[in-house]
Amino acid sequence: MNSVGIVAPKSVRFDHAISLKSGATLPGFELVYETYGELNAEASNAVLVCHALSGSHHVAGFYADQDKSTGWWDNLVGPGKPLDTNRFFVVGVNNLGGCYGSTGPNSINPATGKRYGADFPVVTVEDWVATQARLADHLGIERWAAVVGGSLGGMQAMEWTLQFPERIRHALIIAAAPKLSTQNIAFNELARQAILSDPDFHGGHYYEHGVVPVRGLRLARMVGHITYLSDDQMAEKFGRELKTGKLSYGYDVDFQIESYLRYQGDRFTTYFDANTYLITTKALDYFDPAREYGGNLQAALARAKADFFVASFSTDWRFSPERSREIVYALMHCGHNVSYAEIDCDAGHDSFLLDDRQYHGVVGAYLDRIET
Amino acid sequence: MNSVGIVAPKSVRFDHAISLKSGATLPGFELVYETYGELNAEASNAVLVCHALSGSHHVAGFYADQDKSTGWWDNLVGPGKPLDTNRFFVVGVNNLGGCYGSTGPNSINPATGKRYGADFPVVTVEDWVATQARLADHLGIERWAAVVGGSLGGMQAMEWTLQFPERIRHALIIAAAPKLSTQNIAFNELARQAILSDPDFHGGHYYEHGVVPVRGLRLARMVGHITYLSDDQMAEKFGRELKTGKLSYGYDVDFQIESYLRYQGDRFTTYFDANTYLITTKALDYFDPAREYGGNLQAALARAKADFFVASFSTDWRFSPERSREIVYALMHCGHNVSYAEIDCDAGHDSFLLDDRQYHGVVGAYLDRIET
Repeated sequence: MNSVGIVAPKSVRFDHAISLKSGATLPGFELVYETYGELNAEASNAVLVCHALSGSHHVAGFYADQDKSTGWWDNLVGPGKPLDTNRFFVVGVNNLGGCYGSTGPNSINPATGKRYGADFPVVTVEDWVATQARLADHLGIERWAAVVGGSLGGMQAMEWTLQFPERIRHALIIAAAPKLSTQNIAFNELARQAILSDPDFHGGHYYEHGVVPVRGLRLARMVGHITYLSDDQMAEKFGRELKTGKLSYGYDVDFQIESYLRYQGDRFTTYFDANTYLITTKALDYFDPAREYGGNLQAALARAKADFFVASFSTDWRFSPERSREIVYALMHCGHNVSYAEIDCDAGHDSFLLDDRQYHGVVGAYLDRIET
Repeated sequence: MNSVGIVAPKSVRFDHAISLKSGATLPGFELVYETYGELNAEASNAVLVCHALSGSHHVAGFYADQDKSTGWWDNLVGPGKPLDTNRFFVVGVNNLGGCYGSTGPNSINPATGKRYGADFPVVTVEDWVATQARLADHLGIERWAAVVGGSLGGMQAMEWTLQFPERIRHALIIAAAPKLSTQNIAFNELARQAILSDPDFHGGHYYEHGVVPVRGLRLARMVGHITYLSDDQMAEKFGRELKTGKLSYGYDVDFQIESYLRYQGDRFTTYFDANTYLITTKALDYFDPAREYGGNLQAALARAKADFFVASFSTDWRFSPERSREIVYALMHCGHNVSYAEIDCDAGHDSFLLDDRQYHGVVGAYLDRIET
């Protein structure tokens, strides 16, 4: 398969104030994005890819002179790939509140001249979609051929069909849920408490103290990785293998899984922002389009006009197939067109990021039938 | 049902050195224990109750002039209860390394005159059973009528049948597993890292600093509670209920489940010791009687001579019914007598602590048939 090759992020600034769901107002904001492929004359071939918790605008390709800079969904997006950049103009965007260049807690607050830190408002999936719509305006895209996302990204695709029913033809909602379960919220709360209680958090103003709440962010990432992998896959990958072949009778690494979690946790703190982590978990917790319909998802989804593709993975216990089926049933009861695939894959929630033959096959088949 | 009434802990000191599985030696140690009912003349009616991660010797009854001091398994142990103190002499013991009075990290190290802290050796399930055997000697109990335990307590009951096949007639192994899964270890590692990375941990010597690693211990307990409850029960108990009826758009409590986890976490730090938590999770991780038999559980269990009762709970995802069935199949293939009950209960791993009619019914029926 070919790569889209060398790419470079672009940036756009919006100087009009935006009111957020929380009631807070931002005087303006910047979004960092990337595009792959060519927008056709009718602007009818544009596809938005929404990222999940730790993702970014850098979906495909790689950066010049930078090793290991491949985009997070490069296996799916590119010429001849399931999301084919020979046909589609693909847009990746870093969400508001992010830490990869879009306006977020790490940005300068014009009101104070200092970084926002904890003063950056909590943003929601609705806010993200509203700001993504401004990016669409900027790019001259009146209507997306499709909006695609996995996990939290799938929630954004769903929200697009509700907030802008006329501006999206197809929503691809992968490994997502119509709202978090109590247990999902519990894990997010655990991760947040790890960050909030880190003495280096300084109430979210750690930038001014020249420190980062490394301990908390590291623990938060460990929580994440445990829930991203399936029990079975963990057992297969790491089992009860010992790192050094014998028990330490102490708190150094005994089992390989410990080594994996520590490594992933440590690495995360070198590139991700703790305030962004907090905001993003709140966006996850708050997403619940059925809430204003008394919990009736079908009623919430009635106003959508898009066609839907929904996919889930057999071993995903974070957002299990059952959760995707809730979406599918609600859509069917609304009379919407919906395709659903339940993929047999042992990689848990992380499956949506992997190059699984069956998975990529159905996504590609669905996208191939979209007219441009 | 009647209670055993007012009880008081006893204590016994063993002045002979003990070699631990880790290779470390303790010059002597103390065990705190309680007993309920009367030991008969033949000493044939003694039942040992082993505790799990955060349990203690205080299994049943309550303390004089102390509110809310009911023992942790009081619903199961007492006159006329499933473990009937009219028939049995029941012994509860705080394990070595504990924080309820038995020698542990919080005790004075005679070699230094200071508290052990992190210098207290990691102990194992095997060590616990070896020390419990000394307590049995002290009490004049050559052979237990039964050893009973849930979760980590069940592992101790299993270990009794292997280390002292002649000294136990019945093992009741409830909500346990023959060894931790990779995911189980991952959650323990997460909890340990929360404690170890707390700046107030001071390498385990926090006592000398007059502090307690409250943040880490609180997070560890939150991890625990998430894994003790089932997804379904969490949903039923807390759902997505908001504490104040509306979203905070901040990091105060939004959802009831957050309130529950914070409360449980905070409370735990007022009575449990962080070093004991570390030691106990290691004992869990290390338990694997099949290891020295190349992973063959049947071969490991062959030397047991006890009869077995095994029970699991349908919604327990920490130690699922599948894990109990591994034990049952291995026992059956050894030709051991084994009764197995899979209880339909929605309370997850915590089910073993609850007064469930079907559960208590089968435990009681099994115990009733034990001759004394």
